[in-house]
Amino acid sequence: MPDLWQDAMDHAVTLARKAGEIVKDALQNDLKIMCKSSSVDLVTKTDQNVEQLIITSVKEKFPEHSFIGEESVAAGEPCVLTENPTWIVDPVDGTTNFVHGYPFVAISIGFAVNKMLEFGVVYSCIEDKMYTARKEKGAFCNGQPLQVSDQKEINQSIIATEFGSNRDPDAVDKIFSSMRKILCLPVHGIRGVGSAAINMCLVASGCVEAYYEIGIHCWDVAAAAVIVSEAGGVLMDVEGGPMDLMSRRVLAANNNIIGERIVKEIEAFSAVRDDAPVILIK
Amino acid sequence: MPDLWQDAMDHAVTLARKAGEIVKDALQNDLKIMCKSSSVDLVTKTDQNVEQLIITSVKEKFPEHSFIGEESVAAGEPCVLTENPTWIVDPVDGTTNFVHGYPFVAISIGFAVNKMLEFGVVYSCIEDKMYTARKEKGAFCNGQPLQVSDQKEINQSIIATEFGSNRDPDAVDKIFSSMRKILCLPVHGIRGVGSAAINMCLVASGCVEAYYEIGIHCWDVAAAAVIVSEAGGVLMDVEGGPMDLMSRRVLAANNNIIGERIVKEIEAFSAVRDDAPVILIK
Repeated sequence: MPDLWQDAMDHAVTLARKAGEIVKDALQNDLKIMCKSSSVDLVTKTDQNVEQLIITSVKEKFPEHSFIGEESVAAGEPCVLTENPTWIVDPVDGTTNFVHGYPFVAISIGFAVNKMLEFGVVYSCIEDKMYTARKEKGAFCNGQPLQVSDQKEINQSIIATEFGSNRDPDAVDKIFSSMRKILCLPVHGIRGVGSAAINMCLVASGCVEAYYEIGIHCWDVAAAAVIVSEAGGVLMDVEGGPMDLMSRRVLAANNNIIGERIVKEIEAFSAVRDDAPVILIK
Repeated sequence: MPDLWQDAMDHAVTLARKAGEIVKDALQNDLKIMCKSSSVDLVTKTDQNVEQLIITSVKEKFPEHSFIGEESVAAGEPCVLTENPTWIVDPVDGTTNFVHGYPFVAISIGFAVNKMLEFGVVYSCIEDKMYTARKEKGAFCNGQPLQVSDQKEINQSIIATEFGSNRDPDAVDKIFSSMRKILCLPVHGIRGVGSAAINMCLVASGCVEAYYEIGIHCWDVAAAAVIVSEAGGVLMDVEGGPMDLMSRRVLAANNNIIGERIVKEIEAFSAVRDDAPVILIK
């Protein structure tokens, strides 16, 4: 059934492009209205508007599908992946960048069936780069095929990661300690554009050998996971073993050699799972 | 004398664009031939070719001018700024990025007379962004005027910096310690594109509030210093006080409030000055 989800994927590309226009308009007209403002974990009206646009359109076209989106979950919707075809959406990945006009902001749309990712669309809208991948069909950027780096030497590699928005001292200790150990392997450098989805697309593009982070959410990485995998890369947990989409932890690498080498240096910690049961206080 | 150095500046823009084409060609054809390979401080044949192109053309058109260039200094030429009109050039700022195809690579051309910077041209060639500024004439990106951020609250700011290529443990200690203190002020985030010149242009563009680094060279920052300054920003030493172009230290900020707030958090250290006397061993 080669075309089973092609309709959905085509629609995801259309929606990502439309959402990207809204994001770019908001940037040009300086409409970066803050909604919630924890001091470092930002949300804007654009995040909410874009997610609403995507939900409404998906529900109209695919009424039987399920939906997991950053803003819906923030508003109390469940974050549980079922067997049902499910859209996993981050309307604005890199909200801090968006607020500052820092040029890496993505619309991320992943799609899973029977709990397996089927396709991923990441639109880095300021760069106008449309990353797409469908299971067993390869990964592309603006239609050009993507291929991970063939580097096997860690000391010839660039590693992407982020400081993230966690300011808990124990977590910050581990984040800095891991980065320092990796820097001094040594590697060529450590980078991070401030968007998990785009960092992973840079792994898929061969610009960096690996990306890891603890604290991300399923909607940050679902789409890009397909893109990395279809570009020839690997996905794993930051302690090795299979990646768990709901664990808030990801390591994407060009190959297992680089991935497993980095695992040795990461001081892992846990984050509250995306699918943790919600405790209702009566 | 409004047009005194306009000829030189126009020529700098032409040369930067030509150099950018060479860099992009090398990237597309995967001609990233390594020359020297300290494990993290990289140089390629493209760095040398581009610098030679710029020197040859400048010497032909302005035979009386002086020249300070990264590769010339590496080859033993002096790095001393005199009163003479002087071109201060980094042929490829972001060589590590260039080697990896990471999309931030700049040609940086600064110009000083009587030891004062007169104009700066930074061409971020993969992005195709031509940043230009001339003293008292404003700063531009692709012809559009640039303006620094008006943010005065450090905890609403993004700060750019780099891990750099120094792997000396004492320096790495201070680099990490400074970053951690700044992150936990808290700030919105820490970023770094891997090119000092482009980081500074992002300050000028208002995408980040400040950038600081110890270990950069005069050719990394001379051009961008004019761009920051003409976009309304300020330049200082990482311990406060005036910036010294030859000190290997820079802090560029949108205003003095943000700049001086960061100074308080930076654990400064010294690097061997760019204009340190060369000790000849007989």
